[in-house]
Amino acid sequence: MDTAEFRRRGKEMVDYVADYLDNVEQRPVYPDVEPGYLRSLIPAEAPLEPEKYDDIMTDVERVIMPGVTHWHSPYFYAYFAAASSYPAMLADMLSTAIGCIGFSWAASPACTELETVMLDWLGKMLNLPEDFIAGTEGQGGGVIQGTASEATLVSMLAARCKAVRRIQASNPEKSEADILSKLVAYTSEQAHSSVERASLIAGVMMKKVPADNNYGVEGAMLKRMLEQDKADGLIPFYFCATLGTTPSCAFDHTTELGPICNEEQMWMHIDAAYAGSAFICPEFRPLLNGVEFADSFNFNPHKWLLVNFDCSTMWVKKRESIIGAFKMEPLYLKHENQESGLITDYRHWQIPLGRRFRSLKMWFVFRMYGLQGLQDHIRKQVDLAKEFESLVRADSRFEICAKVVMGLVCFRLKGSNGLSELLLKRITKSREIHLVPCQLSTRFVLRFAICARSTESRHIQHAWKHITKLTSEMLEYRH
Amino acid sequence: MDTAEFRRRGKEMVDYVADYLDNVEQRPVYPDVEPGYLRSLIPAEAPLEPEKYDDIMTDVERVIMPGVTHWHSPYFYAYFAAASSYPAMLADMLSTAIGCIGFSWAASPACTELETVMLDWLGKMLNLPEDFIAGTEGQGGGVIQGTASEATLVSMLAARCKAVRRIQASNPEKSEADILSKLVAYTSEQAHSSVERASLIAGVMMKKVPADNNYGVEGAMLKRMLEQDKADGLIPFYFCATLGTTPSCAFDHTTELGPICNEEQMWMHIDAAYAGSAFICPEFRPLLNGVEFADSFNFNPHKWLLVNFDCSTMWVKKRESIIGAFKMEPLYLKHENQESGLITDYRHWQIPLGRRFRSLKMWFVFRMYGLQGLQDHIRKQVDLAKEFESLVRADSRFEICAKVVMGLVCFRLKGSNGLSELLLKRITKSREIHLVPCQLSTRFVLRFAICARSTESRHIQHAWKHITKLTSEMLEYRH
Repeated sequence: MDTAEFRRRGKEMVDYVADYLDNVEQRPVYPDVEPGYLRSLIPAEAPLEPEKYDDIMTDVERVIMPGVTHWHSPYFYAYFAAASSYPAMLADMLSTAIGCIGFSWAASPACTELETVMLDWLGKMLNLPEDFIAGTEGQGGGVIQGTASEATLVSMLAARCKAVRRIQASNPEKSEADILSKLVAYTSEQAHSSVERASLIAGVMMKKVPADNNYGVEGAMLKRMLEQDKADGLIPFYFCATLGTTPSCAFDHTTELGPICNEEQMWMHIDAAYAGSAFICPEFRPLLNGVEFADSFNFNPHKWLLVNFDCSTMWVKKRESIIGAFKMEPLYLKHENQESGLITDYRHWQIPLGRRFRSLKMWFVFRMYGLQGLQDHIRKQVDLAKEFESLVRADSRFEICAKVVMGLVCFRLKGSNGLSELLLKRITKSREIHLVPCQLSTRFVLRFAICARSTESRHIQHAWKHITKLTSEMLEYRH
Repeated sequence: MDTAEFRRRGKEMVDYVADYLDNVEQRPVYPDVEPGYLRSLIPAEAPLEPEKYDDIMTDVERVIMPGVTHWHSPYFYAYFAAASSYPAMLADMLSTAIGCIGFSWAASPACTELETVMLDWLGKMLNLPEDFIAGTEGQGGGVIQGTASEATLVSMLAARCKAVRRIQASNPEKSEADILSKLVAYTSEQAHSSVERASLIAGVMMKKVPADNNYGVEGAMLKRMLEQDKADGLIPFYFCATLGTTPSCAFDHTTELGPICNEEQMWMHIDAAYAGSAFICPEFRPLLNGVEFADSFNFNPHKWLLVNFDCSTMWVKKRESIIGAFKMEPLYLKHENQESGLITDYRHWQIPLGRRFRSLKMWFVFRMYGLQGLQDHIRKQVDLAKEFESLVRADSRFEICAKVVMGLVCFRLKGSNGLSELLLKRITKSREIHLVPCQLSTRFVLRFAICARSTESRHIQHAWKHITKLTSEMLEYRH
């Protein structure tokens, strides 16, 4: 394909994309395919000779689209939102064309520098403490990770390294293996599975802290566990707090937890993967209080801030603690300006070596929406969640299972878990709307998350009508 | 930005991208900016209100482009190639629009299933042993990782888990901490820095195996180290072989190393990040011999197979060993079809949870080029490297430092390292071409890698003319 053909096909693709997104609500949100459906629809081997482009696009509709779960349908209410906006898409096209691999400053200065400044922009929108802002002299700063899972892992590795060095400094006789076997990381029982997974990767013990009745961890509860573990000869070194848990968007009490972590010389990481975007609104910012005690903070603009995946933004107070954890300097990655202080080599901040020019997406989105446009988006989606909550509350067969703070509504049918499980099966099978469950205490709960940018009140109303219709059918059938 | 404006701006962006790539050789390949250049060119904070799109595009030329290292300039010869092709870009646009986060089968069946089949297609192109092909019944199969660093880490974690389980099965009294402190991973002293980094992350010991005169590791050398380490009470559990090292594109002797690893119950991972793409050509396929002994194999189509970053393809013989290493099953990620055998939940195969629909890029590229078109691309770039090698060999001031097998030429000025270091400084400063150095034994060596898809003979000839001109000026000046 030469440039002339790309010009033609690229413009066709722009229209295909625009048509897809404009009409996505006409497609069944959840696909009607059986596992293994795709293999039989295409050849078993790649072609020897080039095929026609039109045949590929025909196959997109024949092979791909029937198997897509449409995350940007206004009837998609599963998991959490995946961000999507036109400015981000345009920036992504540009990023792909530039196609630099920005592992070091020299590998593409603009890629590194725009990222540092965009993280400062976003940090200021969140009113993050000055310690987290890079500026020209700061010791902290931000980085784009691929996912919150990676941010958690990177923070845990940095904490592990720091703890081992600190303990060896005062106890030079202790081996690293001995120390590692006694390190304990903590997180809420409500935390995302990726936190426990990080501890498996890092090879350290992980303990789950019980949450309170609102599914948040209190300081006293952590404190009690720490005392016991220290008495048992263990070494607490890391706590991952969650602001906006995945099951119910609950909030750990970071203003209580932070001082405890600081006192115990534990690294506090805050994972606000979903909720973080809302902190750009003054009315939600108090939920971030306590971040001043944290060593690192992370959230996903690729969830709720209109910057398409992947863009998980992470800030640290001391970049040295994160860089020091696994710095490698082979000659083929060295460059002249490396030690100047102004330079950031982001490869030291992350698990992969290579990285795309992702900050372009942030730049385009922030400028095309402005802070106010982004706030409008958050507020609109929270209002839609409140609207859905009212509908649920007005129907006495249902109950709300957790406080609705942002764009997530947790609800269930009163009575046995089996009822709600059956209802969810019917919802999934109907393919008109899509949502997933969670477990809160022992209860099976349905999660209704406002996801697509195009979701409006009429979609919420339709979704609720659909749910109540299935409920009535189901309850009738059972009688 | 509404859909109508996206149609207009998207088409403009297609033209901008086409113009950029068509004319990239007119731009200085390496930017003339000082560290910190960008911050002063843009505001310190995000705007409150939306800005005009045209202003952003003006700023792309004013702020971004002056700081870009142009990886797709035909005068870019640094690191290794970063793949770029129009079919991959079109697929990327589609992938961004679909915007699904394919962590599980249910989260978008097409995303998962196309990936499994594309990895089979590519595995067959490489003539991988049947064990690595998923098919409908296979125990192995492939996955797209973001980078080779992640593939290495994932394989090491799987090996670590397998080793601990195996040893505890026969020695139930041994603690995990005790076992971990004795595990040893091995790799060549020429291996990429990310291999050692993986061992830091995994918290296991790593030993570097000396390479032979051609910079490859021989079986005997590994064997000797293993015997010594076992005698010292250590537990060898993992070897990462490299096919096509980063410094000089050297090849470990996997046909010797493989049987040793199998005998010692060590996991053998093969990292062919750069060279792997060439194995689709029958004349290069013998270099992959020995892969039949490997537990996992990885290379980067995003380097040399025209699939834009990120797309690092990894195959395992037993998917269970990789999934088992860090499987987590919270309710919100469960789905009905999970246990059917045909299902793959790729989140268990990788470090991040989220993942883009990256197999679309492979599908578009394989179909628009065909196997023959891809082979043509590899062969053309190898020929260009040979052409450059001839030029170097014809100038008695220079020497070739490693056998030229693929698209990389390692060369230097005869004499002290200082000479070549000075030459590289002049090359970098001139900004006409861009390359990076490496170290081979004690020698400072210049790496000339054929990178851009648009590189032709005339660019190679020009580059050499430029290098010899700088050399002559430099040598004259010194006399």
